[in-house]
Amino acid sequence: MEAKRVVIIGAVALGPKTACRLKRLRPDFEVVMIDQDEHISYGGCGIPYFISGDISDVKELMSTSFHMERSPQFFEDAKDVRVRVKTRAESIDRRAKTVHVRDLVTGKQEDLPYDKLVLATGSQPNRLPIPGADLPEVMSVSNLSSAMAIKERIAKGEVDRAVIIGAGAIGIEMAEALSDLWGIETSIVEIAGQVLPGVLDSSLARMVQRHIEEKEVAVYLNETARDIRKSDNGEHRLQLTTSQRTLDADLVITAVGIHPHSKLAQEAGLLVSPKGGIVVNNRMQTSDQDIYAGGDCAEVMHLVTGKPAYFPQGSLANRQGRVIGTNLAGGFAVFRGIVGSFSIKIFDLAVASTGITLNAALREGFDAAHALVVQADRAHFYPTQDLMYLQLVVDRKTRRILGAQGLASNGDALVGRIDSIAAMLPYRATLDDLSNMEVAYSPPYASALDIVNAVANTAENVLDGYMTTMDVDEFEKCFLEGESDNCICLDVRGPANAAPYVAKFGERWLNIPQETLKRRLAEIPRDKRLIVVCNSGVRSYEAIRQLSCAGPCDVINLQGGVAAIKKSGLLNLSEESESEAES
Amino acid sequence: MEAKRVVIIGAVALGPKTACRLKRLRPDFEVVMIDQDEHISYGGCGIPYFISGDISDVKELMSTSFHMERSPQFFEDAKDVRVRVKTRAESIDRRAKTVHVRDLVTGKQEDLPYDKLVLATGSQPNRLPIPGADLPEVMSVSNLSSAMAIKERIAKGEVDRAVIIGAGAIGIEMAEALSDLWGIETSIVEIAGQVLPGVLDSSLARMVQRHIEEKEVAVYLNETARDIRKSDNGEHRLQLTTSQRTLDADLVITAVGIHPHSKLAQEAGLLVSPKGGIVVNNRMQTSDQDIYAGGDCAEVMHLVTGKPAYFPQGSLANRQGRVIGTNLAGGFAVFRGIVGSFSIKIFDLAVASTGITLNAALREGFDAAHALVVQADRAHFYPTQDLMYLQLVVDRKTRRILGAQGLASNGDALVGRIDSIAAMLPYRATLDDLSNMEVAYSPPYASALDIVNAVANTAENVLDGYMTTMDVDEFEKCFLEGESDNCICLDVRGPANAAPYVAKFGERWLNIPQETLKRRLAEIPRDKRLIVVCNSGVRSYEAIRQLSCAGPCDVINLQGGVAAIKKSGLLNLSEESESEAES
Repeated sequence: MEAKRVVIIGAVALGPKTACRLKRLRPDFEVVMIDQDEHISYGGCGIPYFISGDISDVKELMSTSFHMERSPQFFEDAKDVRVRVKTRAESIDRRAKTVHVRDLVTGKQEDLPYDKLVLATGSQPNRLPIPGADLPEVMSVSNLSSAMAIKERIAKGEVDRAVIIGAGAIGIEMAEALSDLWGIETSIVEIAGQVLPGVLDSSLARMVQRHIEEKEVAVYLNETARDIRKSDNGEHRLQLTTSQRTLDADLVITAVGIHPHSKLAQEAGLLVSPKGGIVVNNRMQTSDQDIYAGGDCAEVMHLVTGKPAYFPQGSLANRQGRVIGTNLAGGFAVFRGIVGSFSIKIFDLAVASTGITLNAALREGFDAAHALVVQADRAHFYPTQDLMYLQLVVDRKTRRILGAQGLASNGDALVGRIDSIAAMLPYRATLDDLSNMEVAYSPPYASALDIVNAVANTAENVLDGYMTTMDVDEFEKCFLEGESDNCICLDVRGPANAAPYVAKFGERWLNIPQETLKRRLAEIPRDKRLIVVCNSGVRSYEAIRQLSCAGPCDVINLQGGVAAIKKSGLLNLSEESESEAES
Repeated sequence: MEAKRVVIIGAVALGPKTACRLKRLRPDFEVVMIDQDEHISYGGCGIPYFISGDISDVKELMSTSFHMERSPQFFEDAKDVRVRVKTRAESIDRRAKTVHVRDLVTGKQEDLPYDKLVLATGSQPNRLPIPGADLPEVMSVSNLSSAMAIKERIAKGEVDRAVIIGAGAIGIEMAEALSDLWGIETSIVEIAGQVLPGVLDSSLARMVQRHIEEKEVAVYLNETARDIRKSDNGEHRLQLTTSQRTLDADLVITAVGIHPHSKLAQEAGLLVSPKGGIVVNNRMQTSDQDIYAGGDCAEVMHLVTGKPAYFPQGSLANRQGRVIGTNLAGGFAVFRGIVGSFSIKIFDLAVASTGITLNAALREGFDAAHALVVQADRAHFYPTQDLMYLQLVVDRKTRRILGAQGLASNGDALVGRIDSIAAMLPYRATLDDLSNMEVAYSPPYASALDIVNAVANTAENVLDGYMTTMDVDEFEKCFLEGESDNCICLDVRGPANAAPYVAKFGERWLNIPQETLKRRLAEIPRDKRLIVVCNSGVRSYEAIRQLSCAGPCDVINLQGGVAAIKKSGLLNLSEESESEAES
């Protein structure tokens, strides 16, 4: 194939990756990359750590791992790629195969010819459609320029109090950045009934919320921001009014999602989805085969649902960029789709997920079930062990794994588990596969029967009818809030653990240690609904199996046990801490 | 199905798991578990941590995660399983369906009837066939009793100097246990030419060896232990003579592998492999359908080679035990096989692997190739980042991934990557799959283009002929030891990094920073073999692509670059440290 001229619009993640891959395969190609911003090729996901101060110099986000700044000159010298910054692509003439660009400094316009064109136009933050959203103290964290502006205001001491609108990943990362290092009094306002909506189901979201609140960030759920105005009293600059309250602030950060920046594609007549994502095939070609698109401006195939999805992530942009580079060079590469993996550090807690949530699965029409396991993140006898919370979502009919989500203090340990499950999802892996998944075992790094295996086993036990389960949410409703003594707890832990609960709930909290249950079956009331409880859900399962032998009674396992109750901040009676691991 | 009587021989890992799973599914079954030892149901993999003192009380290895000792009484009360310790199974009468047992305390013999029998007889340590191997100061770490005996001797102050024979996992873990906490002067003698033979290929093994030696444990490779005798001089108790030297010691630990303990099965006429593993089908049934076997006494299918293998691991025993329990209860469960995942903590270094090594792959007849990547274990701009070393083994013909192995200081981060690759192996995943594997990305836990993707991309570049590569071993031979100036290094890093090498090697070490290469091509000698070097192998790949354009010359990429050289202890010239991440 003879050398071609390739124009790339957008120079943050996908653009540079495409350019570099292409030039390595075809050094003879001419590659021009344009961007309307002055900052290019930066790690946008690092912005919260720049604002927090974990990363002191913004240049680190723009540097290679060998400490060279990825400036236009760097791309010229090291990669033989032309870069034109502060240059806006205004339209595409697909017949003439040119891009009409405007130099934002000089105002000069010209038409750049291309043989192949790559759209890497990224995303734009959703705007908040309320009065005051355009005040200068109301900002988003959509790019490096806005991040630098926010940090400058904070560093000047202009921000004592901040409100973040949106409890998604960016909102929460910003809450940590502002409050943890800078000591800014921070609140989050979220329209949904939980934090991280779409990423976690409600039980785990509740635990995350609890952690954020313990770090003294206020979280207001089910609240809509109504308007923002300049403050009268002068102590703080702004007043944000929600559907429930008024909050003072010096800074309001809006983090209410992003949408594909696909106007250019749309105007050029390329196929764009109803939600605005540029439609591409698995070689990342748009409806014009000479134009490729990827990253935050394009939609992707979701391999769990089998439907198109919008899942903007810098890491996916990098992978797609390589695929485009290979294809432009005359090779054959495909990007089959995504499984939706996600991770975030929230103060001392790591949260990660893959696939789809239980809620999403039900919405998609799957006959979905879930299981939650609380277990040590390595051998329970190894000194550095800590509890991990892992939930699995499965399809009852096919036993296919649909998703997983978890929390832990050790983020590497959690992300490793989530990544392992994610790796199986494209193969439509079943519970049986996960039950036997081989974890590289040694006590410092894994359990002999690791939590990934245990959660599959637990889900299998649910699907096979060996137990029915209850979540913390349901426990709250039917035991803590429902005062009826028709529903009682059977605590099968040792008396030392159970004592504070027995003291609090009296006859509604029955304590029979599991190892004594066999000979104390007569004490079990047959006319009540029995919520069987231990510290994690393991010994309670054992008890349920024993009770199954003793004749019919309505027994239900509290998933995650007392560990889950405590982590959610529902009941905090002091007792010795325990963990369990067997299923 | 009516209730049955099940006898289980062996009560360490597979036995108890089988018993408990079975009783949960069929509380009406009668289950008897026998063991010749007094200690049962312990985490054998925790022994090194007990000896080191990380785990202070041996009871922790025998306890549930909720701190109850898994004693015979515990199995009786909590699990409704009968346990008979210090009871040896002497023979099986398959016609009468009885096991002949002897009480090792009273001498009483009897025949235990069974409907179904489970063999969980485990493994035995290989004996060293040399004079003196049966001296009381020569010990193995095969079970809890021997571990307790070793710790007792150490605690009494009887051990100042120790020699470990065998540099496999157990030998190395014991070396750390003895030297790190107890300060015992420790040496390892290994018959093979590297540490961890069979687990790592030589380049990574060399880095591990270097780390062990930095911790002041002597490592003697390619040496055979010849004899052990009581010492004459009195300062130390023993003298071990190898093929090369004589070592004084107060304790010699033999860790020269284990073999299946399958005598009982063999004598009962069950099918046993030439190497001694009991042959089972994927439901874990032996050649007698009423007898199941699993754990360290059985062989398994290797899913990468497609051949039977022996891979004793407590974690596999647990998974197989559950499969047997389900099948005994009348369910249908299968254990398809293993991929051979492994992990170990060695002082401050974690090592993990899955699948097969390059050497094993070549032996198995694969047209195997490998790639090594050195990259940050999270975003290179994130403060806690550290270098990870990851090698991938692939089949050129099918592009199938055959194995991976790595080192890192952060073991959770490494094991997570290895587990993710392991999860794909049963599906015969290809480079393309790993290249696009979705890692849950955020800067604290992963790179946008994570090392698992990078190593697949690098391997693809090798297979596609975009570069040829060289390992550290070969670099040593052809550059450091081969004095010919026919082969020179082209260092494409900055002058500050290259300076000490230029100073040492003069004209044999040419420094042209990659970003200046385009205009300095004329300086490249065309009549030499060019080893292109950067810190990790990334910028050198970029340079090689540029050189490919400049006309034919013999260029080769040093995999892992200067980072790999240093980690192997080959050259240690001081310079600023760097890392790189792009492929």
